[in-house]
Amino acid sequence: MTVFLVGAGPGDPGLITAKGLDLVRTCEVLVYDVLVARELVDEAPDDALKIPREGMAQHELNDLLVDLGRQGFDVVRLKGGDPFVFGRGGEEALALLEADLPFEVVPGVSAMSAVPASAGIPITHRGVSAQVTLVSGHSANGDELDYAQLAGTPGTLIVFMGLAQLPKLAASLIAAGKPADTPAAVVSRGTHADGESVSGELHEIAELAADLSSPALLVVGDVVAVGAQLAALRHAVAS
Amino acid sequence: MTVFLVGAGPGDPGLITAKGLDLVRTCEVLVYDVLVARELVDEAPDDALKIPREGMAQHELNDLLVDLGRQGFDVVRLKGGDPFVFGRGGEEALALLEADLPFEVVPGVSAMSAVPASAGIPITHRGVSAQVTLVSGHSANGDELDYAQLAGTPGTLIVFMGLAQLPKLAASLIAAGKPADTPAAVVSRGTHADGESVSGELHEIAELAADLSSPALLVVGDVVAVGAQLAALRHAVAS
Repeated sequence: MTVFLVGAGPGDPGLITAKGLDLVRTCEVLVYDVLVARELVDEAPDDALKIPREGMAQHELNDLLVDLGRQGFDVVRLKGGDPFVFGRGGEEALALLEADLPFEVVPGVSAMSAVPASAGIPITHRGVSAQVTLVSGHSANGDELDYAQLAGTPGTLIVFMGLAQLPKLAASLIAAGKPADTPAAVVSRGTHADGESVSGELHEIAELAADLSSPALLVVGDVVAVGAQLAALRHAVAS
Repeated sequence: MTVFLVGAGPGDPGLITAKGLDLVRTCEVLVYDVLVARELVDEAPDDALKIPREGMAQHELNDLLVDLGRQGFDVVRLKGGDPFVFGRGGEEALALLEADLPFEVVPGVSAMSAVPASAGIPITHRGVSAQVTLVSGHSANGDELDYAQLAGTPGTLIVFMGLAQLPKLAASLIAAGKPADTPAAVVSRGTHADGESVSGELHEIAELAADLSSPALLVVGDVVAVGAQLAALRHAVAS
């Protein structure tokens, strides 16, 4: 028995890894995040136990994985994105190790690059951005972000967030010195069929994104302008 | 006909996406990076044209993709990692768009998180690191890195690099103010069966990594200590 911590990818069920999909198809127990695509949950065997991780605190989830492992099941813990990129996979791994249970991490495609890509935005681009900074606007540990430091960081800034955080995030970056006209984009439900995005300048991005839905990702930096260039060309090709 | 810019993932052929693998299996032309796993190249149909991208400048590669697209082929351009994370996928996308050719980006698992994960290191961890900064030590555009800025950045620093760059990188970070005893790790050929890693303090990491082979990735920050904790526990479980 093994507990596999598997990244489901950023949304589109086709973006799970081949290895992850094989594991889902052969597992005995599937513990899945509610944001994971239904198509992937349906890939588990009919007789597999399927447990949504809904309303479960992280320590309860850790305990559940340990309990299932002790019972000898092959468990797939299917998480959105990548287990080790703001996915708290390290905590689950530690809990399993402390319980002497074998586990394996199967990385996934992170929303970090796939979600901007779904809106046509490359997060690095030659001559435009050679650095990417990734933070979570959910502020998992309750700390405030260091806006002064983030405002002075070159390259591309990516923020995982709920849309409720966006007005404060954008205003705080500008207050800390990030130019108000920095190109910015918000991508909502990126890689999903119903994904949407808006782009503009940092000072107006919260207003532009007001009608989008969570989960969402904020991209700040000149790569957004590259994305706009790509989008304009793409539109010209399509029309 | 479409040109698909497909991420092959970080090395382990099982880490390509399900969608990417399907496209490789049905393509007419496969243009692949030499670092892509041989197993993936072998997944292309027997009668597909397979073109290694070896000794080809980026503009020559762009021209090749445009040329193949104009001939009406279904082309898979298979790149290591993720096409839009230091993968220059944006340049290929622009070239195709400027030529009025349809293309699609299929993201891949980036080495950024998968390679540290293969050495047991989560790049974020609650209470330890809530920020990731990603740069390329290859310095694709010839610019020097801003070491003063990088040295002052909180959280986890990830550097894609060749091992030849490591002594200068580590020394420059320390000279710019990064504490010499910051935990650091180098992961060589991560996710491959023959992957290796070393960890220690930043001042000694170049010496520790002297016998490893490229491609390699440098991780700097307290998450390396979380990785060491995981490794110690894992060793205790295995023994």
